[in-house]
Amino acid sequence: QRARDLGVRIGVLPTGKLNAITDVNGVKVGHTTLAIGDSIRTGVTAILPHDGNLFQQKVPAAIELGNGFGKLAGYSQVTELGNLETPIVLTNTLSVPAGSAALVDWTLQQKGNENVRSVNPVVGETNDSYLNDIRGRHVKTSDVLQAIQRATTTNQEEGCVGAGTGTVCFGWKGGIGTSSRKLPQKLGGYTVGVLVQTNFGGVLEVAGAPVGVELGKYSFKETLDKSGDGSCMIVVATDAPLDARNLKRLAKRALLGLGKTGGIMANGSGDYVIAFSTAYRIPHESSSPLETYPLLRNDDTSPLFLAAMEATEEAIINSLFMAQTTKGHQGHTIERLPVSKTLEILKKYGKVK
Amino acid sequence: QRARDLGVRIGVLPTGKLNAITDVNGVKVGHTTLAIGDSIRTGVTAILPHDGNLFQQKVPAAIELGNGFGKLAGYSQVTELGNLETPIVLTNTLSVPAGSAALVDWTLQQKGNENVRSVNPVVGETNDSYLNDIRGRHVKTSDVLQAIQRATTTNQEEGCVGAGTGTVCFGWKGGIGTSSRKLPQKLGGYTVGVLVQTNFGGVLEVAGAPVGVELGKYSFKETLDKSGDGSCMIVVATDAPLDARNLKRLAKRALLGLGKTGGIMANGSGDYVIAFSTAYRIPHESSSPLETYPLLRNDDTSPLFLAAMEATEEAIINSLFMAQTTKGHQGHTIERLPVSKTLEILKKYGKVK
Amino acid sequence: QRARDLGVRIGVLPTGKLNAITDVNGVKVGHTTLAIGDSIRTGVTAILPHDGNLFQQKVPAAIELGNGFGKLAGYSQVTELGNLETPIVLTNTLSVPAGSAALVDWTLQQKGNENVRSVNPVVGETNDSYLNDIRGRHVKTSDVLQAIQRATTTNQEEGCVGAGTGTVCFGWKGGIGTSSRKLPQKLGGYTVGVLVQTNFGGVLEVAGAPVGVELGKYSFKETLDKSGDGSCMIVVATDAPLDARNLKRLAKRALLGLGKTGGIMANGSGDYVIAFSTAYRIPHESSSPLETYPLLRNDDTSPLFLAAMEATEEAIINSLFMAQTTKGHQGHTIERLPVSKTLEILKKYGKVK
Amino acid sequence: QRARDLGVRIGVLPTGKLNAITDVNGVKVGHTTLAIGDSIRTGVTAILPHDGNLFQQKVPAAIELGNGFGKLAGYSQVTELGNLETPIVLTNTLSVPAGSAALVDWTLQQKGNENVRSVNPVVGETNDSYLNDIRGRHVKTSDVLQAIQRATTTNQEEGCVGAGTGTVCFGWKGGIGTSSRKLPQKLGGYTVGVLVQTNFGGVLEVAGAPVGVELGKYSFKETLDKSGDGSCMIVVATDAPLDARNLKRLAKRALLGLGKTGGIMANGSGDYVIAFSTAYRIPHESSSPLETYPLLRNDDTSPLFLAAMEATEEAIINSLFMAQTTKGHQGHTIERLPVSKTLEILKKYGKVK
Repeated sequence: QRARDLGVRIGVLPTGKLNAITDVNGVKVGHTTLAIGDSIRTGVTAILPHDGNLFQQKVPAAIELGNGFGKLAGYSQVTELGNLETPIVLTNTLSVPAGSAALVDWTLQQKGNENVRSVNPVVGETNDSYLNDIRGRHVKTSDVLQAIQRATTTNQEEGCVGAGTGTVCFGWKGGIGTSSRKLPQKLGGYTVGVLVQTNFGGVLEVAGAPVGVELGKYSFKETLDKSGDGSCMIVVATDAPLDARNLKRLAKRALLGLGKTGGIMANGSGDYVIAFSTAYRIPHESSSPLETYPLLRNDDTSPLFLAAMEATEEAIINSLFMAQTTKGHQGHTIERLPVSKTLEILKKYGKVK
Repeated sequence: QRARDLGVRIGVLPTGKLNAITDVNGVKVGHTTLAIGDSIRTGVTAILPHDGNLFQQKVPAAIELGNGFGKLAGYSQVTELGNLETPIVLTNTLSVPAGSAALVDWTLQQKGNENVRSVNPVVGETNDSYLNDIRGRHVKTSDVLQAIQRATTTNQEEGCVGAGTGTVCFGWKGGIGTSSRKLPQKLGGYTVGVLVQTNFGGVLEVAGAPVGVELGKYSFKETLDKSGDGSCMIVVATDAPLDARNLKRLAKRALLGLGKTGGIMANGSGDYVIAFSTAYRIPHESSSPLETYPLLRNDDTSPLFLAAMEATEEAIINSLFMAQTTKGHQGHTIERLPVSKTLEILKKYGKVK
Repeated sequence: QRARDLGVRIGVLPTGKLNAITDVNGVKVGHTTLAIGDSIRTGVTAILPHDGNLFQQKVPAAIELGNGFGKLAGYSQVTELGNLETPIVLTNTLSVPAGSAALVDWTLQQKGNENVRSVNPVVGETNDSYLNDIRGRHVKTSDVLQAIQRATTTNQEEGCVGAGTGTVCFGWKGGIGTSSRKLPQKLGGYTVGVLVQTNFGGVLEVAGAPVGVELGKYSFKETLDKSGDGSCMIVVATDAPLDARNLKRLAKRALLGLGKTGGIMANGSGDYVIAFSTAYRIPHESSSPLETYPLLRNDDTSPLFLAAMEATEEAIINSLFMAQTTKGHQGHTIERLPVSKTLEILKKYGKVK
Repeated sequence: QRARDLGVRIGVLPTGKLNAITDVNGVKVGHTTLAIGDSIRTGVTAILPHDGNLFQQKVPAAIELGNGFGKLAGYSQVTELGNLETPIVLTNTLSVPAGSAALVDWTLQQKGNENVRSVNPVVGETNDSYLNDIRGRHVKTSDVLQAIQRATTTNQEEGCVGAGTGTVCFGWKGGIGTSSRKLPQKLGGYTVGVLVQTNFGGVLEVAGAPVGVELGKYSFKETLDKSGDGSCMIVVATDAPLDARNLKRLAKRALLGLGKTGGIMANGSGDYVIAFSTAYRIPHESSSPLETYPLLRNDDTSPLFLAAMEATEEAIINSLFMAQTTKGHQGHTIERLPVSKTLEILKKYGKVK
């Protein structure tokens, strides 16, 4: 069960209907889970801003580098041009080239893209090598394409799915998590949805309760522990009409949500936030040199910032609550977060009844 | 009383001796408090990395822009050259020019600086205009010089002093706060000290307890509330031998500590982190083109990151616990955080006994 | 005479009517020149994007840091919010606080700003201390206000005026220079205007001719020469409807123009570009949370990039051609560029007839 | 023949022995040229900072984004950690995934890397689709490995080799170019070497002579011409002991060299500079938490900046002089720069005798 279903309440803003990134209208999510034999525990997660031809109808986007120890593909073009022209793919560290190649494939083959000769694939990753035979590079083009094809606007799968199949978070089994916030109409009525791939360390807190300390498992507990390392990929979607500059500001707030779970963006962590808006599309070709979109004023962005922060925090917690104990590569096992004990701790700290 | 003295424990790392930025060896802090008549509620806080001629013996430094809605002076040169050549001065928004002018004065007049013709003053600010007649620009050169002259290596004043005299935080009286962490020897034994000037909003949490919600005062509670705006200046000092690149990474983690108090880096907030190291000095002139300093490897920075995060969180909470109800400009009054009630809430949430 | 009047042609695009930044409709420029006694050789240059209340009607803007060894005020807020809310003031290094204070004054006193309690002054500088008694800080508030008041939409003064009174460029007398480009209608018909304050070194080239080498005066000619140091402030105005992201891209191209004159952005140089658009205004307050401006598509920005590059190159050259030999502080004299010899060199290299 | 061999002199500093990036001690370069049948005109260029295990012995590095319309892999980790752990591979736009996959392969297979589970491949590209069937993605892992294996410390091949096989520059055939500068002993005696892959547009100048205009071929000549688009990859190597911060500053100056050839960093251009130093190595693992390297002071970097600028300019010009007329995909032909005519123009402008 998800954290909220167990009575855990994170933040002050209401969630969207599914409490998932797919609450943002049109956004699709799909997973390919590779849990094969003893050693393959990895996968692919694809996030599509809309159902159309993404290359021809780009969306405004920005990427924030929390801690850049990672292999994210696509940063510079998104930053320079302020837009996204492919689905976002998440996978494992050594499969970024496979993910990129597949996105190029997919784009070239889409109807209408017969003359496309330049594609900027956006692929994020975390390192699942403790549970997964990462050196085997088991993610294939077909796995990526499958994740894209399976994507639906109602997806809310979490835990050991897709790119979260083999990840570890705060010493427990991590994975995919998602959450959303819907602003009251007076604050604009916009939705912010977040999807995370959690694979990082620190000192776990759940809704402010010191779960990591109470469970006796946290970074630097033993002085030379390096478990703080790892990574977190965060995807933020919104239907608010933000330009790339304000999307970057929104992305930055997601990192505060990561901090609230006890994440520290350790040296070895690749913590990235990719934010996009579905409010308008940027055509690849246009007969006019001008574009005219209504854009939200700076002054009205703050509620969205809080929404991104809260949804990120909850998505990370969901990834832990929904993950399962996983045995993988070289016989390694990572336990799921002990949910009953965690709920007891949350009770002790007044966080659930 | 400071939060820790009341039994509030933030984080897992031990504090330094004073639990203040002055725990970092050689760092000095001084305040000039301007609480005059009905309308002047402002001041100056000065932080000196060492006791010598700072221009001739610069220290490695970096500045992180959390949310750049602010008037910080000195950013580009610190970033380009990786060093700091003046004390850091904090004051109110419209007094940055006065603070900068005073730092230039001070530097030009120091012995040994007779030929100095270029100075990069570093001055931060928050906007205290609710309690202070900010348009009157009451901070004078002499106030800045006094803060510098008063600076001591044992200063641990907090609350309504110096640049914190007129600030507001989470709807309560903010001010100056400070805290430190001392790493265990096995993690390097380094100290990280933080000083904050708090003037921002969000949804206050104290050690993870939802104090803002319980007290019924938080951003967006009423839908058009803009109280999230404001600013936070954060100064991080360490004796760890970091270069400018790793100081910037350290600075970034301080923002996670701000997030843990419930800060959201709202649109109108000027959230800046200035980080410096006292581990080595960079001479203004040198007979050799080479410099040789032992520098901490990337791999060993993570415990410092956690330390910066924890100390920032605690410094912010201290600024609230130590502030006093203040009446100021145009008859405005800001209450101090109701500490007894807060402690009750902390009890309810298992955070104090 | 200006370079173009002497037959020097820089670039392939046509200039605007005045070949000055004031060709951008509505942009005003004014100077206060302080050439007093033996030792004061400094001044103030003010650039106003429009004639109205700049705080209430901000303009989109961006700042590019070429080499950040400088004291520019206002960087972070322009970058965060993407707008400019004061005139741009240029002066000497140690007078940035005075310039900032004056801009605050000016803004607070404007009609309609009675309740303004936060202002982000943008002030750039170069170091004129070879000719000017910079430690004397002779620029006063009244000098800054005068430069603003004198600003006109037809100003095209160059050389030893305003902030260029005491500067040195490529070893010759530098100063203020300006130039513009007007794109053909088929490329949008937009105007790009540039104003520079030149105070830097390198290996001077005029329209590609090796003037510095031929005149025997250039950086590193004598091996320990540090004359490469210095600074260049570049202001770029356009009436093209660019947002802050594309203004930053535009600003970056101005640096290529600096490079074409032989500038190297030496270690000690503070090379900054401030770019703004007059195509639309961003109201400080608005009844709507949305703003709708037609914006130029990324695809159509390249001609503007070339225009910024060419206008910057020509503005720098103009600053040299129009400056006069100046004697100043401590009896120092800097010769003007020997124009006749330079024209001979340009003839030798086929650049003028 | 290379430009210098024909009497063209660029800049004021002396070149290294080979006038190539391989003048930097230990740097190796290798190419795989794919000129097959009618349609394949592409390839791979590999640059190795040293001959050892690059993953275990990283080198300090930085990446500067000139114009980020490109697909460069590896940016964020190089920027975060300040080092490079693979060879640099250049290829075509759609083959970045293949290049990245091959670098991962190569690294995993190196002796000593049996336990490596994270690799940050650095791969740059330009778009050779006018002459090359880029959609066919003809670059294979073996091609990349071959370029690495063929790399030598004396390589100085230029023109239509490796990643330059199918590129177009200023409307003429571009390709690979290289150049170097060796500072006089009094300026440190360091070497700066540059290698470029040229595929961009603008208004060609050779040593300041307006070759593009004289030949009647330049950007925006015809008003709707988009030939300014394209890209330039620039690799800068030095034996000067720079840290990552100063390597980034060095990289930025290479863009000024690009500007001097008439490049404008057009909207569609992916202009990147990757800079590294061979002066010291950063071990992947170390028994000490501290590293001690002599580093060049900021004050002594300027001659290196000029060197990077000059070597980049000359490398670009070399890429044009050394390229050959190429017929490729869809029957497209790109002529080589008419060298005789160019020399005539250079004579006319006094640039060669």
